[in-house]
Formats: sequence, structure tokens, C-alpha cells
Amino acid sequence: MAKGLPKRSEDFSAWYNELVGKADLAEHSGVKGCMVVKPYGYAIWENMKAILDQKFKETGHQNAYFPIFVPKSLFEAEEKNAEGFAKECAIVTHYRLKNDPDKKGKLMVDPDAKLQEELIVRPTSEAIIWSTYKKWIQSYRDLPLLINQWANVVRWEMRTRLFLRTTEFLWQEGHTAHATKSEALEETEKMMHVYADFAEDYMAMPVIKGLKSESERFAGAEDTYCIEALMQDGKALQAGTSHFLGQNFAKAFDVKFADSEGKQKYVWASSWGVSTRLIGGLIMTHSDDLGLVLPPKLAPIHVAIVPIYKGDEQLAKISEVANKLKADMQAKGIIVKYDDDDKRKPGWKFAEYEMKGVPVRIAIGPRDLENGTVEVARRDTLEKESLQQVDLAIKVEHLLEQIQINLLDRAKAYREEFTNVAATWNEFTELLDGKGGFVQAHWDGTEETEQKIKEETKATIRCIPFDQKEETGSCIYSGKPSKGMALFAKAY
Amino acid sequence: MAKGLPKRSEDFSAWYNELVGKADLAEHSGVKGCMVVKPYGYAIWENMKAILDQKFKETGHQNAYFPIFVPKSLFEAEEKNAEGFAKECAIVTHYRLKNDPDKKGKLMVDPDAKLQEELIVRPTSEAIIWSTYKKWIQSYRDLPLLINQWANVVRWEMRTRLFLRTTEFLWQEGHTAHATKSEALEETEKMMHVYADFAEDYMAMPVIKGLKSESERFAGAEDTYCIEALMQDGKALQAGTSHFLGQNFAKAFDVKFADSEGKQKYVWASSWGVSTRLIGGLIMTHSDDLGLVLPPKLAPIHVAIVPIYKGDEQLAKISEVANKLKADMQAKGIIVKYDDDDKRKPGWKFAEYEMKGVPVRIAIGPRDLENGTVEVARRDTLEKESLQQVDLAIKVEHLLEQIQINLLDRAKAYREEFTNVAATWNEFTELLDGKGGFVQAHWDGTEETEQKIKEETKATIRCIPFDQKEETGSCIYSGKPSKGMALFAKAY
Repeated sequence: MAKGLPKRSEDFSAWYNELVGKADLAEHSGVKGCMVVKPYGYAIWENMKAILDQKFKETGHQNAYFPIFVPKSLFEAEEKNAEGFAKECAIVTHYRLKNDPDKKGKLMVDPDAKLQEELIVRPTSEAIIWSTYKKWIQSYRDLPLLINQWANVVRWEMRTRLFLRTTEFLWQEGHTAHATKSEALEETEKMMHVYADFAEDYMAMPVIKGLKSESERFAGAEDTYCIEALMQDGKALQAGTSHFLGQNFAKAFDVKFADSEGKQKYVWASSWGVSTRLIGGLIMTHSDDLGLVLPPKLAPIHVAIVPIYKGDEQLAKISEVANKLKADMQAKGIIVKYDDDDKRKPGWKFAEYEMKGVPVRIAIGPRDLENGTVEVARRDTLEKESLQQVDLAIKVEHLLEQIQINLLDRAKAYREEFTNVAATWNEFTELLDGKGGFVQAHWDGTEETEQKIKEETKATIRCIPFDQKEETGSCIYSGKPSKGMALFAKAY
Repeated sequence: MAKGLPKRSEDFSAWYNELVGKADLAEHSGVKGCMVVKPYGYAIWENMKAILDQKFKETGHQNAYFPIFVPKSLFEAEEKNAEGFAKECAIVTHYRLKNDPDKKGKLMVDPDAKLQEELIVRPTSEAIIWSTYKKWIQSYRDLPLLINQWANVVRWEMRTRLFLRTTEFLWQEGHTAHATKSEALEETEKMMHVYADFAEDYMAMPVIKGLKSESERFAGAEDTYCIEALMQDGKALQAGTSHFLGQNFAKAFDVKFADSEGKQKYVWASSWGVSTRLIGGLIMTHSDDLGLVLPPKLAPIHVAIVPIYKGDEQLAKISEVANKLKADMQAKGIIVKYDDDDKRKPGWKFAEYEMKGVPVRIAIGPRDLENGTVEVARRDTLEKESLQQVDLAIKVEHLLEQIQINLLDRAKAYREEFTNVAATWNEFTELLDGKGGFVQAHWDGTEETEQKIKEETKATIRCIPFDQKEETGSCIYSGKPSKGMALFAKAY
């Protein structure tokens, strides 16, 4: 390994950027704002996808695929949605290049190949999907329609950050249609819970479930439910959203159904999504100054075995043991890499697997051969211990479970420490300027106050949490009556 | 079900189009040339993806993800590749919309948001990937680099057909880098075999492996290997290609590596891909006038159980048996749908599952309850038989295996019947105008002759098959000496 990472405590942002590169997760491409997701980073995304996809199917959804392009006339049909994305979209205007007569070997856009109607590269697919649902939905028998799409989307971002905010990103978007408002609301809520369970059970990332304030709502939604996580620098990350769309898209695209009595009614809708941004959240929740720390349930490699040897003969003996242990672990579904690459020294390998967040590292040296032991190191606590080779697979299986639990516990403890109540404006600003984190505070419910707070502190309302006791009070900013607390934080 | 399909023998093209719609596989979207892949069609694609992905990983490849946009300067770097795709690409020129001052509620492209450099929506990713590989490859230790990407691509097609030729389609593209020419050639060949095995073992679609003639080569390749299948209308379908790219992209993007002696050398490359076009091939290989016929290994549903009953009491009794049989089959990994929807009649359901190509349909009526039997119908042969309920899961498992084998055998027999040798020009044109299919014939190896044959017969060289005996002769068109036979056909 080259030299280490910047310390989180000194420059969290530089630490993040360098970690993403050194752990081989992603890099900037030659296309402004677009990233290359490298194989190790993509393997984490594949693991996330597989689990989420199963959860979507278990909750009755089917996958489908809709076009990447949205004709301008469809794009602008739902006005608020269009307004929300119009300023940051990639627009296809031509369909052909031709040889540039002035520059040999170069190409230019062929002005004769101008599209009659411009195409927007989808920033989200409500418009294209609801223009399709119009054909699919006639009767109450066609409902509910529960569809998910795995896709790439493009939002023209001026300031980008790998995984957290990129011009193109990968995501899934669910788009459902229902006969009644209550069914659509139930779906919206259900998917928020699916996301929250995934975040906690697999990413070991605790989240707060809540409702967005009006100004933070998805463009075109009646309500946005979200899950919010807290990063190690005290900033919040919106990790997933689930939108109750009311009848907005049904009206914009004239999607009606005949109810059981033959009456024509507009359809109710939800949409919900999570993206490669989750990888950013995963990194910033668990990782340390030595590199990535991955929860076992999402790690592409669970265990790395490193032989410590001099000469081929010793290596051969160690390899025999290592391959036996590897086979035992693999039989239990543990993903093991035995790294007998002779071109690298053990110290280099140790640092490499630390940087890549492999949950368990096993070292086997000559003394281990004599004693029937191995050295087992946990990535989360950095603890090492010598274990007997007997029943090692069972012990490692148990250890991986412990690591998964420990990461969640640690993240929960951190979040608890960094979630505070502010009773006054002074407390509020001191918390935000000082330790950071989530700050619960009374808010008068107006956009005006929300905006002022944002201007003065850079903190936004992350959500109005569902899970809090009902309590009235006075707004910390305006002093006006408040019906409940909102959760504030500076955010990504 | 509504009325049936056109007959294949009368209008193959209309039969295909209607089948794709009625079997709920895909439909045209509101975006010219782009398709919506519906849930049932997408489920087939997911099955294909899962199997191919596993095969790619077993052969040492990793997945990654690269940007959808290619800046024009990168796009044009490999001249032949650029020339091949320049005439059919979608071009992003602007990154913002604004309110149209002349039309309330409408948007227009913001002329102030013109990109300095246009972006091409990837028609294929060699350019963007090789510009990245330049950063990833320094030494022979970085080689081979074996990467695959699952992605959407866009080629601006004027005449489109669902699955077979659409403006946007889904595919995978492998892009590998090697230290030596022989390694790159070996990879190119290996992936052709992976595709061929997939086509035969899973799609039950036999293919001919061979080399493309120069004029049919991928733009930027030194050689294109392909697999060619024969459809039921006697036309050929290129089902997958694997390209030996030589050092063309390495030179265009200046990708060199230091060999073990420290000498700088250009890297050798391959690329290979299959797409949603495979679904078109699957349809046209097996399906019949009643609808889709699917090989069990790719079918989203293996078995549909339809109860035949009068009244709730009878339904309850049948459901008890059906659910028991369903559970037994599921325990063997068989995917079963028990369709007790009371809104549809059994006849409608029979036609529906026939249209959707479900390999096995089981009907259970009151007499079956008395006799401990069920009626089992095979989709491939349309045969029905009455079977005892005892050990039904084992019998159905066996039947699914038989169906898989029968579909391949049938397709092979068809292809054999429709593969003929033409010794003379007369024979050649008679075969192509008459029964169609593959025609093997001597060819003088010149592009000129190939072009003339195409003009006069509409047949193209599908490939020069690898698996044929070496034999010299005279070109059927020019009479000039020929070193071997080429495989001709009219093609999709």
C-alpha cells in the first residue's frame, strides 16, 4: 500500500475521497460528473441489489424496463415534477454525427439530423411510466400495479461527489398504481419500512423514518417519506425516499380506471427509490482511518487468508492448511480469498485488506503450523487472537455474525450520542456549530422559518420523525406555537 | 383471450409482432424506436442475465459500470469504430430546460446551457472504457483485465422491431485487455463458446459458430466471431458476437504496459456482447401459432395449475389438492402458479398459459378428485395425459427435462432440414427464393462478390463456420477459386 488516508478528524471530506479511490470502489470518469464504478465497488452494489430485489419481489413487485428518454411533451406534463428537474437534465437534440469538413478525422453534429422533439435523459421515470400506465390500466382488475425498475438516471449536477452526488447514477425506482388513496399511502409507508429494514439489517446503518417538510418534498409528490442516517462527521444523509404521489400523475397523464360499479376514477400512485448513494452512506457510517469497514452481509469477500512464509516448501505446507480451511468455510457460504501472491509481502496484504474492509483476516505462519493455530483479526475492532484450526469455520461464521451486530450497535451508539434536543435557539446553534449531528427542535411548521434556519445555520429539516412522542411547544426560531419536533441537521 | 395469432405460415412477421404483445413481453413506447419491456418479458431477461452472469464470473470476469455518455473527442478517437456508429447515435447538446416565454406551462431548451463538448449516448462502450483502462493498466501485473458491464445502449435505428432492433436496448458488454495477441484471441474464442453453450443448453437454440467476413465485422475489430441461429421463417439471426480488437483501441487511447523486462508494449483487446435480442431469437425458434413456447430453463413460470369446478365447495376441495401438489413441486425448485382466479373461465386460462408459453399446464376437475388424478398438458407438443397425483412432482420434474431436450432436438432437426449446400448459382438462388434457411456455398473471398450476392439475393454471409471440413472449390458467383464454404442466409 502507498501511504495512508487523511484522518477523519482532520479532513473528513479528503478522507472520504481518498478512501473511495484507494479501496478501489469508484473514480471520476472523463465525462464531467459521471463516475466509473470499479469492480470492488460494483460488487457491493450487486449485493445490495440482490437483497433489495428479493425484498421487492416478496412484497409483490415485478421488474420491468422503460425507455431512458422522455420526450419533452411528456416530461412537462406534470408541471411540478418538470419544474423540479428542468434545470438539471441532459437533453438529446440530434441523432447523427457527420465528418467535420474543416477537421480531418473529426466528427461534428449533423445539423440535418435535428430531432423534431427533444428527448430528456430520464432524471426519474414518473413521466414515461405514467404515460405507459395509461395503456395498462382500464379497470379495477388491473390494480394494484406494482412495478420496479433497475436503471441509470441522469441529473446534471454542478458539484459532484463519488456515490453521493453524481450526474449519472444507478438506482431502482418503484412505481405503483392503486385504486384508493389508503392503498397508495399504505404502499408508500411499506416501502419506507423495507428500506429502513434493509439499512439496519444489512448495511448495519440505523435510520430515522419520517416525513419530509413541504420544501424538501419530491417534485410532484403530495408527501415524501424518508429514511435519514447520520454520518461520522455529524452530517445527515438521506438514504432513501418513498413518495405518495396522490393523483398528480394520474391527472397529468389522464390515467383512470373503472371501479367495480363501472365508475371512472383517477388512479392513486406511489414511487420510491434508493441509489448507489447508499454505498456512500455505508462508507461514512463504518469506515475508519485505515480504510473501508464493511458489514459482512454486504462484503464481497468475508475472509482473506494471508500466508506468512519463507520459501516454496513452507508455502506449500501452509497452502495445504489454508485450502482445507477455505473449503470448510466455503461450505458454510463464507466467501474466502486465499492470497498466496508471491509478489506482495504480508504487510502489504494486511494493509490492502484493511483498506478494502474485508471483515476477517486470517494469517498463517510456520508457528501456526506447529501449534495447529491461525491468527484471526477482526476489521471492525482491529482485535487479533490466536485460534485453534479445529472447527475454525464455525468460529468464523460466528465471528462474522458478531461483527455485523457490533457495527450496528456502534453506529446506533454514535447516533444516540449525536442526537440532541435543543430547547432554545442558542442551544440549537451551539449544537450545530459544535458537535453536529441530529438536533431535535420545535418548529412552527412554516416554510419561512425553515428557510431562515437554513440560511443562518446551514441545517435543514431532515424529517418529522414518525417515532416520537406528541408534544407541543414553541418554535426555537420564531417562538410561535409548534405541534411537534422536527429533526434538523446539516446534510449531504 | 381475445382472438388468436396470425399463422406463421401466412405472415410470420405479423405473427411475431402480435405474439410479443399478446404474451405480454414488450411494447412500443411513446419514444420513437424505444421499447417497454413488460414484466413477463423482463422476467425472461432476468433469467438469461442470471445464467450468463454466473458463466462470466466462472470464467474470471468481474462486473463494473462506466458512464452512459461518451464525449465526442473520445468517441472519435478510434476512427473505424466512430465511423461505424456516427450515423446512428443520440447526441446530448444541452443540460438545462427553461420556461418557454411564448407558451405558458411549456418548457424549451435553454440556449445558454449548451455543452462545450457534445456527449454521445453510448452505442457501445469501447471508447469510454479504453480511455479508463489507460489509467488502470501500467504493468503486465495489471493484465489480463477481464471486465463485463450490464447496461443500456442506444443506436438510432430508423426501422425498429421489438427485441430484434430497437433504438435503446439492454445488453452486456465484456471488455478485456491482455498482454499478448494469443491471449486476446483465446478470450475472444472462449466467450463465443460461452455464448454458444448458453444458447444451446438454456435457450435450446442451436447455433453455428464462425467468423464474420470483413464487411460484416464490428467497426474497429480485427475479427468478429459470432453465433448464428436459424429462425422458423428460414431467416438467420446473429445471436451474439465476440470481437478480437487487436491493438486498435490500445493505440487509439495510448494504452501501454511494461512487460516483465520493463519494455513498453500496446495492450491487446477483446469485446463481446449479447442483448435483449436473444429474447427475439427465443421466440422465433420455438413458438407456434398458439403463442409463445419457452424452454423450462428460462421460463418465469414452469407449471400453471387450473382448477375446473362448479361452486365454492368444489373449488375448496380442488384447492386443497392443488396446494399440496404445488408445495411438492416447489420443494423441487419448480415454479408453480395456482390460478384460482374466479373471474376467468378455465378455457380462458388454458389459452392464456398457452399464449405465455408456460411449459406444463395441469388441470384438476371433480373427476380427478375421485380418481386421484390430474390432467397434464405439455406446451411443446400439446399432448395431454392423465397422471396419478402420487409422485406428481417427480413426474413433472422429469417432464420439464424432457421438454427442454425436445425443444433443442426439434430446433436442431429444423435447422438440419433448412441447411443445404449449393453447388451452383442456380441452386443457390433457388434455395434462397424457395425454402430459405442456411445455404453453404463456395465464395471467392472478395467483398465485391459478397456485395453482388447480397444485391441479387438479399442473402448475406452469416459466417465462415469453424466446424466444417476444409475443401477448395469454385465460387458459386464468380467461378473463381474458393478456399472454403461460407454460410449464407437472409437475416434479421
